[in-house]
Amino acid sequence: MMKIPKKILSALRDDEKFLVAAHINPDGDAIGSAVALGLALESMGKEAVIYSKDPVPLHYTFLPGQEKIRSVLEDALEADPVLILVDCNSPERAGIEGHRFRRSIVIDHHETGSDFGDLKWIDHKAAACGSMVYAAIKSLGVKITKAMATNLYAAIAVDTGTFRYANTTAEVLRTGAELVDLGAQPGLIAERLYETWNIRRFRLFMMTLNTLEIKNDIAITHVTGDMLRRTGAKAEDTENFSNLPRRIDSVKISVLLREIGKGTWKVSLRSKGDVDVAKIAEHFGGGGHKNAAGFRIKADLKSAKEALLHARRKLLRR
Amino acid sequence: MMKIPKKILSALRDDEKFLVAAHINPDGDAIGSAVALGLALESMGKEAVIYSKDPVPLHYTFLPGQEKIRSVLEDALEADPVLILVDCNSPERAGIEGHRFRRSIVIDHHETGSDFGDLKWIDHKAAACGSMVYAAIKSLGVKITKAMATNLYAAIAVDTGTFRYANTTAEVLRTGAELVDLGAQPGLIAERLYETWNIRRFRLFMMTLNTLEIKNDIAITHVTGDMLRRTGAKAEDTENFSNLPRRIDSVKISVLLREIGKGTWKVSLRSKGDVDVAKIAEHFGGGGHKNAAGFRIKADLKSAKEALLHARRKLLRR
Repeated sequence: MMKIPKKILSALRDDEKFLVAAHINPDGDAIGSAVALGLALESMGKEAVIYSKDPVPLHYTFLPGQEKIRSVLEDALEADPVLILVDCNSPERAGIEGHRFRRSIVIDHHETGSDFGDLKWIDHKAAACGSMVYAAIKSLGVKITKAMATNLYAAIAVDTGTFRYANTTAEVLRTGAELVDLGAQPGLIAERLYETWNIRRFRLFMMTLNTLEIKNDIAITHVTGDMLRRTGAKAEDTENFSNLPRRIDSVKISVLLREIGKGTWKVSLRSKGDVDVAKIAEHFGGGGHKNAAGFRIKADLKSAKEALLHARRKLLRR
Repeated sequence: MMKIPKKILSALRDDEKFLVAAHINPDGDAIGSAVALGLALESMGKEAVIYSKDPVPLHYTFLPGQEKIRSVLEDALEADPVLILVDCNSPERAGIEGHRFRRSIVIDHHETGSDFGDLKWIDHKAAACGSMVYAAIKSLGVKITKAMATNLYAAIAVDTGTFRYANTTAEVLRTGAELVDLGAQPGLIAERLYETWNIRRFRLFMMTLNTLEIKNDIAITHVTGDMLRRTGAKAEDTENFSNLPRRIDSVKISVLLREIGKGTWKVSLRSKGDVDVAKIAEHFGGGGHKNAAGFRIKADLKSAKEALLHARRKLLRR
């Protein structure tokens, strides 16, 4: 079982006003964790504002309670809440730098750390921040509702590739089973997560796959601003695009470069097994996990690809 | 918990020689179930021949024990074994029609049935035949080895889309957790199942996606013999190709037509939620489950597609 620092539990139990903040470009783990924790705190009779600077991507809008998420801080700050960062560990990652909080709590499982936080609970071994939030609210004796269970199941599903990645342990599967007992519907959640692409997203996906280049064990695809315009898809639609080329046996790293401005690319890396792409991401000033990491680079497409291939050769063994 | 007929357990306990047969065009559930049961019977000191008429598809060759599978019956028949059909319920489905057995046992979860079998255990509610085999060998007190656990985990993974389909219950997830405790490695198994496509298979997949047509809520793709020849891929490589177009929100049924001879097509249907494609398959003389079914049709491509669209309109409500 997961070890939860007692101080974290006391802080959640003893304080009355909280701001639960997800990271920018929130994924399912960030949103599900934040919403579940917010609902749990409310059910304990506390005030909890759930915050995400960026909007909730369309494929997460089915999550019950996500409609409570606010993207403006000012009102919430008046109550002088305790800050809880979920699925991230610095104010910059949540897009709330510059604000002051009387107390701050960090609940995260990312390997790239920061010094921030009065109380920290960082568990690198947790498959998802959702697993940590589940353990915490269970320990607090909160009655876990179907809405909380759905958010937590989705959080864990997103960060484990729905029990496909190497971080899927027996405990993760047992947590999944418990959340199903509490009302989460695996088929429905998977359908909403993976099978509700609009036709624009699907067209962009096809167009992206057609850019595929394979260099040794690296599969590279890219999405330009022009491709987004031509298909009418959104930047957030590219989430998980890089998973598909991983299907090829010889591919150990799948890379997606997405143009985020004139000559600037957001690079996301997904790897198999022991190939640690966090090392590559850190080399370029980014971060993440062993099998999923990212960074930004200012360069033309060709140079960006070359820099990446060079870093792979230099930093990782075959 | 699953209810296992006592007579099935006694038959497995009391007899000494078995032939465990999977269905033709075996999928992971058929192979994993047959191998795990064969290994379990052997560990009980019995003789067990594992049989599959068709070869094991490449992406299942990582399963430990699959190398024991035989594709020739004659030798095995000399021992006068008890037949056990797994993941199917008629000799025709296993490609062993015409042979006589002194006793036959059926362990299956398919809805399309037959009269065959001296002892039958058919559980439509089981997510996978692998779940049934797991329950049976646990009840028999067999020490479940890592090899058995890996086969059973893979069997359940294949038939639940690795815990994504609506048949994923809390019990299925708990079984998954138990199998991980027994040595199954979820990350490794998922990688072998989903991420070991050779480049020919990937090229065929891309080519197939480019044939996509969407008619109302049906997505249709096809694979011709010529496409197989041009890419060098194999027919079995098309397994799960129809899953991808299901990602589109408006798509309720994804259809893949594969040319299996001059003017003859094997049609596989995958649906979402309550859309029962077994009804369509049965109309054309095929069968399957609510969300995954198939049939064969002799027609040119255009007529085959039209017949299908017509059947969908006639047989299923919007």
